Amino acid sequence: MTTDTWIQPVILSGGSGTRLWPLSRTQRPKQMLTLGQDRNMIAATVARVSGPDFAPPIIVAGAAHEALVDAALDQESIGALILEPAARNTAPAIALAAHKVMMQAPETLLLVMPSDHLIKDTDAFHAAIHAAAPLAADEWLVTFGIQPSHAETGYGYIEAAEPLSERGRRVARFHEKPDAARAEAYVESGEFYWNAGIFLMRADAYLAALETHAEDIARDAATAWANRVTEGDVDRPDRNAFASCASQSIDYAVMEPAARKAVIPVDMGWSDIGGFAALHDVLPKDTHGNAVHGDAIIEDSSGTLLWAEDILVAAVGVDDLAIVATPDAVTVMPLSRAQDIKRVVDRLKADGRPETERHLETRR
Amino acid sequence: MTTDTWIQPVILSGGSGTRLWPLSRTQRPKQMLTLGQDRNMIAATVARVSGPDFAPPIIVAGAAHEALVDAALDQESIGALILEPAARNTAPAIALAAHKVMMQAPETLLLVMPSDHLIKDTDAFHAAIHAAAPLAADEWLVTFGIQPSHAETGYGYIEAAEPLSERGRRVARFHEKPDAARAEAYVESGEFYWNAGIFLMRADAYLAALETHAEDIARDAATAWANRVTEGDVDRPDRNAFASCASQSIDYAVMEPAARKAVIPVDMGWSDIGGFAALHDVLPKDTHGNAVHGDAIIEDSSGTLLWAEDILVAAVGVDDLAIVATPDAVTVMPLSRAQDIKRVVDRLKADGRPETERHLETRR
Repeated sequence: MTTDTWIQPVILSGGSGTRLWPLSRTQRPKQMLTLGQDRNMIAATVARVSGPDFAPPIIVAGAAHEALVDAALDQESIGALILEPAARNTAPAIALAAHKVMMQAPETLLLVMPSDHLIKDTDAFHAAIHAAAPLAADEWLVTFGIQPSHAETGYGYIEAAEPLSERGRRVARFHEKPDAARAEAYVESGEFYWNAGIFLMRADAYLAALETHAEDIARDAATAWANRVTEGDVDRPDRNAFASCASQSIDYAVMEPAARKAVIPVDMGWSDIGGFAALHDVLPKDTHGNAVHGDAIIEDSSGTLLWAEDILVAAVGVDDLAIVATPDAVTVMPLSRAQDIKRVVDRLKADGRPETERHLETRR
Repeated sequence: MTTDTWIQPVILSGGSGTRLWPLSRTQRPKQMLTLGQDRNMIAATVARVSGPDFAPPIIVAGAAHEALVDAALDQESIGALILEPAARNTAPAIALAAHKVMMQAPETLLLVMPSDHLIKDTDAFHAAIHAAAPLAADEWLVTFGIQPSHAETGYGYIEAAEPLSERGRRVARFHEKPDAARAEAYVESGEFYWNAGIFLMRADAYLAALETHAEDIARDAATAWANRVTEGDVDRPDRNAFASCASQSIDYAVMEPAARKAVIPVDMGWSDIGGFAALHDVLPKDTHGNAVHGDAIIEDSSGTLLWAEDILVAAVGVDDLAIVATPDAVTVMPLSRAQDIKRVVDRLKADGRPETERHLETRR
């Protein structure tokens, strides 16, 4: 790559998931947590796309998370911050970043990625970006397909068709989260990859595809951008126009209907840390398969995730559990049922429990 | 009983156990906890021996627990407080109470009992006391033997010999905590009862037996009492003399060697709540056998003790666990291994962890 094909990272920080509750909360989303790395996830994401090939990243975050983003990131490390006045999923969010780039260089390659994923092999990621760049420059909407390690039913899949370049292949189609049998078949075929929500594409190509396939979103996002308020490096798109946008993912609004779409298969130690089982997977473990974090002691146990945040936890004689403790909330469940945390959080939210929103104040 | 055979309750509050850690701590012993009753255990013990047959109780407590006892008890409900300047087990503690009573009426019957046991059937307890009183008045040292419900290895056993009265039997001997096979044999025989550490005996008879079988303890306790400082209803025995006392239980120092000892078998819903399994046993349970206390939700679980103290706990899909959470410490273990908490606490104490001593300050 030469300097005139700089990559513009666009980091999407709109999530407010609670799949790691009580670690993650509405006002303390996963991207702000430090999970098995030496910094919080959004800072690690920024660091992963620093260097001579990359422009300083554009962060697109919910306006409600402005203070959290400020606290989580070194301001020197980012190029711009776009604050969404409402949560409208990824298609409108990416449109805002594309408009910002269009003002300078419409053919700039946008590297769009979530702020809360782990990628252990940065070199493999960079190599995949390099492989994707010529296709993206040629107006392909390029996605990165994760080599599946197992028949996961929690992800969407990308089905690859004929080769377009040494590593790139045309996307036959995107598939929703499959059932177990279908997931098995996908993985067996060798033609399917996990959809990680990471994309490389020209800003103008994205906006053109959005105009073609989701005209309303394209119009509302353009209006929200045109009527923005800018202070320094912070852009605040117009609330009313943005609120009018349909809430749609880039996958649904653009990638699925798009004709010119490609995939770069990659194996880069990726995880979305989408639950306690995934967190257990990515953490270092003792010889009995226990992943232990914080002020904790564990004895005669195996295969357990024990996470103690500002609280002392002692576990004895347990197997394959998730034990996650904070000073105002604790959860205990088998790792195999970690997705059921959603049910718990939904029930707590229905009860109006503040512990789903934020940490209650405690002191030692 | 007539008024001249009033029973003088003596409630021993010397314990500082941590078998229910993190609920119980050195500075917050089990007798100060509210466990499945409507008041804390020492207050429930006091209430259990109120009424026309009983004098206001004498409390014997560690001097370090003075403030805790004050906070746990309504001062109107107790007769006197004896503060031990050092922990010297039960034989010296009871001697202090006996000396206090000797000043007024040497033949007074002392009803000695721990402050941290649960007795669900108070009527059965009172009936057993009535059955014991004539024997005790006749200078028998009377113990109450709990009808065993299973072959428990965690208690000492009392072996009964020939009848002495309608309900009373001579004690053949006391047995230490047995192994499993021996416990089975004890229970099968029908002649063995659990030693609950509850006694009825004349003050003078106890001191005479102590003089006979543990002369040094008798002397040191008498000196400590003679040199006490009394303020209102509070007696503070002399520190140096009491510290010289051997630390021995009444069982070892007096009951085992004594000749004139009797047992009243009784079935009164007794529990020492000596661990989480026992706590689970005595608490009300849902249809799946879960005992849930505090701010907790539990789903798809069975046979579990879930205790949440000033903290929110969510458990899903767990079976037969103890999950016990406070704002500064949490423990998770199978109920079948609840006795292993001792190992955990010993390790924490060795590490100098303050969480074994007291609750760290937290606020919501």
